[in-house]
Amino acid sequence: MSPVFNFSAGPAVLPKEVLLEVQNELLDWHGTGMSVMEMSHRGKEFMQIAAEAEEDLRNLMGIPKNYHILFLQGGASTQFAMVPMNLLRGRSSIDFINSGHWSKLAIKEARKYASTNVVASGEESGYANIPPEDTWKRDPEAAYLHYTSNETIGGLEFPYVPNSGDVPLVCDMSSNFLSRPIDVSRFGCIYGGAQKNIGPAGLTIVIIRDDLLGQTVPGTPTMFDYRIHADGDSMYNTPPTFAVYVAGLVFKWLQRQGGLKAIEQRNIEKAALLYETIDTSSGFYICPVDRPFRSRMNVPFRLADESLDEAFVKAAQARNLLQLKGHRAMGGMRASIYNAMPLEGVKALCAFMQDFSKDHR
Amino acid sequence: MSPVFNFSAGPAVLPKEVLLEVQNELLDWHGTGMSVMEMSHRGKEFMQIAAEAEEDLRNLMGIPKNYHILFLQGGASTQFAMVPMNLLRGRSSIDFINSGHWSKLAIKEARKYASTNVVASGEESGYANIPPEDTWKRDPEAAYLHYTSNETIGGLEFPYVPNSGDVPLVCDMSSNFLSRPIDVSRFGCIYGGAQKNIGPAGLTIVIIRDDLLGQTVPGTPTMFDYRIHADGDSMYNTPPTFAVYVAGLVFKWLQRQGGLKAIEQRNIEKAALLYETIDTSSGFYICPVDRPFRSRMNVPFRLADESLDEAFVKAAQARNLLQLKGHRAMGGMRASIYNAMPLEGVKALCAFMQDFSKDHR
Repeated sequence: MSPVFNFSAGPAVLPKEVLLEVQNELLDWHGTGMSVMEMSHRGKEFMQIAAEAEEDLRNLMGIPKNYHILFLQGGASTQFAMVPMNLLRGRSSIDFINSGHWSKLAIKEARKYASTNVVASGEESGYANIPPEDTWKRDPEAAYLHYTSNETIGGLEFPYVPNSGDVPLVCDMSSNFLSRPIDVSRFGCIYGGAQKNIGPAGLTIVIIRDDLLGQTVPGTPTMFDYRIHADGDSMYNTPPTFAVYVAGLVFKWLQRQGGLKAIEQRNIEKAALLYETIDTSSGFYICPVDRPFRSRMNVPFRLADESLDEAFVKAAQARNLLQLKGHRAMGGMRASIYNAMPLEGVKALCAFMQDFSKDHR
Repeated sequence: MSPVFNFSAGPAVLPKEVLLEVQNELLDWHGTGMSVMEMSHRGKEFMQIAAEAEEDLRNLMGIPKNYHILFLQGGASTQFAMVPMNLLRGRSSIDFINSGHWSKLAIKEARKYASTNVVASGEESGYANIPPEDTWKRDPEAAYLHYTSNETIGGLEFPYVPNSGDVPLVCDMSSNFLSRPIDVSRFGCIYGGAQKNIGPAGLTIVIIRDDLLGQTVPGTPTMFDYRIHADGDSMYNTPPTFAVYVAGLVFKWLQRQGGLKAIEQRNIEKAALLYETIDTSSGFYICPVDRPFRSRMNVPFRLADESLDEAFVKAAQARNLLQLKGHRAMGGMRASIYNAMPLEGVKALCAFMQDFSKDHR
């Protein structure tokens, strides 16, 4: 049987090496006689696991000392409210870039707490691109500028880090977290759900600059206060311990791959292969995103003849190429090729796509 | 080597059978070639896992049809704010029973959103008991009556379900969830973190009567709105999929044990053994809770001679009896003997306690 390749947008494929480690020590972590799932979060074993995960992430991303790393719950959807409740700091308006589905949800939720100002939008281009930075109308009094570095559904990824001037830059990095090196010092706050490049669903990572802590709006739940979690080393209450542990193993796996520079090279190579297959299909496959904004993580495409969609998904499944159907909001197909998707998986997909197009011309 | 018994208050011991199942199918769930951690929450495989978990829980607890079961994140600490934000329904005051540490935290958080009225408190007795129901001063206009059915730290467990009259009854059931049969129809809302009797940390279960949905206070984050999660079958956003899966296996394990009546009998037997060991120690061990309110789940006790505490913990560890140190707020010892703690674990603990007391008189 050919190997299974899982192109799910998230929860998504994890490195096989990591899954094997988890399996091996599932009932007995390092001779303790306990599963990590059974450990008190305040015991020395789990404290060590959590501290290593944090340190490894700090090293991988080069996170400066004046930033806290928080291991939280609730996904990016929770951050859509938590960010404004923490970062308004007496201001009344937030700048946003609208790059698609997830940006729009972040904007909608923020409207509960502030007025919102869309400084740039991909809407006119059908989210094929974002207008150039020199056309943006940023508000120097904004509480912060928020953008979504990679749109998981639409497949629009920023090829650059926006300039936010003196205003803190906030980024929903859920679906391209850890896929390339970034300069964390340019950000006030970075957040992301774990279930793409980090680990199992149920863990949310927030990286926040210390001077932004501690000014929540009235009525903010204690569990929504970044400072509470920062002061408690993400153990104000019980953290999602098993997810933190798996994430920690993924961080160590990334180190073994050579870190973010090395993983970026692989991601560039994988994405190039897949986009090339689309672009050289003589219009059989179509990608809706302009080249400079094409995501390295989530590759949306459609078949020119939509009546073939079902046959495509079925034939792919028969070759063990799974979860290629596009998000219900977009239709068509989507191949998510996160860090843990091996090159051979992308090659298998490209080979299948070429075969399928030949068979159905 | 003698087997390891883990008395952690949570995250806590899980049934060995469940951990073996998880281990066996960790890389390949039911021939899919995927780990459950890698599955899209909207794929048919995970949808089936989640639907079965919900149905099995409904059957186990006899949850009526007019209640929603929600699989959420954030722990009971999140519910301390989420409950008032959803259940105030235009009222301005909440009735509380103060039975210890967790009740007090729930009260403190609720004060952000309403006035609070403590109708009964264990404080005067040092949380050894709760005054009789006929002395309570309930407010018939209260939004709801909140209590903590089992105090994980103090070891005070309600032997009965309080009468809340016409006011909805809300219960933090985190640490005795699924430990005995209860009549769900007496409650407006039950919530609990999973990391005691349900599964891994990072999952929170809420059981809520449908007529209480949909009246959040202004400014409630979307992710704090029970109705959003009820309407979305707990998939408004990505749920903590792996934790839901493990919880589902625990529910099936409970069914194989004979359900909640059978597990209650075992819990009664285990707790009786341990309290008897304490009570027949001629004062060497002391339990601070009055008999009717003694928890079947968390058994706090101290050594009359506190200078022996460290020796006790060390000697216990040498016999593979782990995590017996009491919560830092209480001191002394605590043995948590949840559903998954086998009778032989309690017997091993009792035998050790008897030996230790003989050696140190």
